[in-house]
Amino acid sequence: MPLLVMKFGGTSVATLDRIRRAAKRVGREVANGYDVIVIVSAMAGKTNELVGWVEETSKLYDAREYDAVVSSGEQVTAGLMALTLQEMDVPARSWQGWQVPLQTTNAHASARIEDIGTEAINAKFAEGMRVAVVAGFQGISPENRVTTLGRGGSDTTAVAFAAAFGAERCDIYTDVDGVYTTDPRITAKARKLDKIAFEEMLELASLGAKVLQTRSVELAMRYKVKLRVLSSFEDTDQDGTAGTLVCDEEDIMESNVVAGVAYSRDEAKMTLLSVADRPGIAAAIFGPLSEAGVNVDMIVQNISEDGRTDMTFSLPTNQVERAKAAMTAVKDSGDVNYAELVTDEDVAKVSVVGIGMRSHAGVAAQMFQALRDEGINIKVITTSEIKISVLIDRKYMELAVQALHDAFGLEKAA
Amino acid sequence: MPLLVMKFGGTSVATLDRIRRAAKRVGREVANGYDVIVIVSAMAGKTNELVGWVEETSKLYDAREYDAVVSSGEQVTAGLMALTLQEMDVPARSWQGWQVPLQTTNAHASARIEDIGTEAINAKFAEGMRVAVVAGFQGISPENRVTTLGRGGSDTTAVAFAAAFGAERCDIYTDVDGVYTTDPRITAKARKLDKIAFEEMLELASLGAKVLQTRSVELAMRYKVKLRVLSSFEDTDQDGTAGTLVCDEEDIMESNVVAGVAYSRDEAKMTLLSVADRPGIAAAIFGPLSEAGVNVDMIVQNISEDGRTDMTFSLPTNQVERAKAAMTAVKDSGDVNYAELVTDEDVAKVSVVGIGMRSHAGVAAQMFQALRDEGINIKVITTSEIKISVLIDRKYMELAVQALHDAFGLEKAA
Repeated sequence: MPLLVMKFGGTSVATLDRIRRAAKRVGREVANGYDVIVIVSAMAGKTNELVGWVEETSKLYDAREYDAVVSSGEQVTAGLMALTLQEMDVPARSWQGWQVPLQTTNAHASARIEDIGTEAINAKFAEGMRVAVVAGFQGISPENRVTTLGRGGSDTTAVAFAAAFGAERCDIYTDVDGVYTTDPRITAKARKLDKIAFEEMLELASLGAKVLQTRSVELAMRYKVKLRVLSSFEDTDQDGTAGTLVCDEEDIMESNVVAGVAYSRDEAKMTLLSVADRPGIAAAIFGPLSEAGVNVDMIVQNISEDGRTDMTFSLPTNQVERAKAAMTAVKDSGDVNYAELVTDEDVAKVSVVGIGMRSHAGVAAQMFQALRDEGINIKVITTSEIKISVLIDRKYMELAVQALHDAFGLEKAA
Repeated sequence: MPLLVMKFGGTSVATLDRIRRAAKRVGREVANGYDVIVIVSAMAGKTNELVGWVEETSKLYDAREYDAVVSSGEQVTAGLMALTLQEMDVPARSWQGWQVPLQTTNAHASARIEDIGTEAINAKFAEGMRVAVVAGFQGISPENRVTTLGRGGSDTTAVAFAAAFGAERCDIYTDVDGVYTTDPRITAKARKLDKIAFEEMLELASLGAKVLQTRSVELAMRYKVKLRVLSSFEDTDQDGTAGTLVCDEEDIMESNVVAGVAYSRDEAKMTLLSVADRPGIAAAIFGPLSEAGVNVDMIVQNISEDGRTDMTFSLPTNQVERAKAAMTAVKDSGDVNYAELVTDEDVAKVSVVGIGMRSHAGVAAQMFQALRDEGINIKVITTSEIKISVLIDRKYMELAVQALHDAFGLEKAA
């Protein structure tokens, strides 16, 4: 029988009523002739409550115990979902990560999936079970302990199951009805995309469009899993085309050069003024930052004058203190000689993303022009094959997003 | 190293503060040189919440899914307890039932323990772990699914661990400070017992003294596990003698003939008037009652007159409707011919329990005299080797308990 994977996030299973609503969707796909693997999150709020208890108990907690505690939320939802389906006369049963088994690395609290056993679940499908309800976000380590995959890990669980079981599609039910050209709270012209390429989704996900966990998109791209994002609160999916399909770029006939405009508010900029410019200076700066757990994003090095240069980089706001400490340490140890460390916490990042850029020159110029027309100064620029990001003053962020959305004509489909 | 099992019930781990308090007790035993296996219940109220969700989802729920949902509460407490101990620098880790493994039968929601694997936990003790925190109440079935042992099953888990690991003692921490000669709410003369024999505790437990799950006492008796019941809310256990020790009768030097007076309020009495008395009539009545799930306790058959007799039995109040239906059915089918079915729901059971009865004649006579002195009419009597129970009007229950407590001098130790 053809197989679907359906994933329901925390808000979609927040109450027994919502679980019933989700179960009805599953029942419809079963009636359509699909076997279904349902991946569930914990009821909304549950994981936060459990994490709160762990953190209150122990500041530097043992991640193995964190995982043992926090994974319990999904287990509850999985059992309740299976019971709800059974009440609807749909043959279903629940599985915890270790029962599948979903094998992971030992990296507790952010484990990676190594392997998914398909035998046990397929044997039950062969016996007539129509729905396997699997607790998302969790697996089992080589040491036989429960692991979790990091926040949002249920998306990754869903895609991994779709890949392992060769599912026709992986549907991610969430509280938004798809992926938009930009955040609809910033411009009413934002338009829902029917399709988006994996590469674009990946850039958008890592840029802060919190619809899908980045790793789930990577995994879907690698294993060519058709991934659909749709709302569990709307009843419009009679023909299987609701939401946004994340797919191979070959599956998208026509698209705009730019698919979307993303932003990230929590950015900071640091500059080391008058650094002695010598071979290995970048390593001497960014090595210690990486060791201190600072995620440096954009880097700009000024032209060297008299053997000295300025080095600027961006980082998440909440890592500024750690970065300062690391930079003070390398100065004190004599590894890096700089005159001054300047921090600007009032910046934001705005990016345009689109696979069409590969074949279209002039996107960067068009972007810079649009920002200049609004009088917005660009502080740092980085580019990739399908993305251009700029760091600007935070107060201009909304304005920049609106201007770029207009400039690239995103309110209209290609 | 010598080993202790310490079990903490739901009220003893109801909040993070109480978990800390319980962990301190564990830490003291570790400091005393013990390795410890801690068995934890779910935080008070949690299991009820989970059971409520299951019952709201599905009236005739699949017990396998019930177990998957309901077992999650203990898992949370086990992780939090391990973290708390680690914070106190006590090397500890948590175990779920399937990780131990604690093997059970397939009887979901009331599974029986088949085997406890000691290898994994002992290996960790050998590596320097001092406390294994085990989620109580749960195990794993031959089909690799999570099972639970029935309400109160954490007591049984604790005793089974003490037996499997050859623990020096099994301490059950609860919200009372031991086993009393009777319910202190009924008479202020009730006295805490320092020791009680397994057989006596078994009778008291099954008579409704809700301190320990009956099965845990059976298990302790079979495997000679020294079982101690004590309060987790008092700090009086400096010398290891607080609470009540449940032990072999040989370990009790002196004791009263009667150890305690127990009662059960939720009793009903049914009488089949004028039953045709013939061989097999008892089977024809009590077979169908058993099949209907009615737990018949006391049975009295009157002397037969003219080939007819009256048959009286007691049963829990909430099973009266089921019993009536079963008795109507056997009358309609012609299997049992009786004139009338009379039900009395206003009765209570009062019992005196003591291994001393074995060697002391006259306990029954003394009991009946004490009740007669108070003008209390006895409706039904049953006796065992170490117990005498009577069914009386419920309004006299407290009076009967007080009178018997006085009559047997239970306010004073032997």
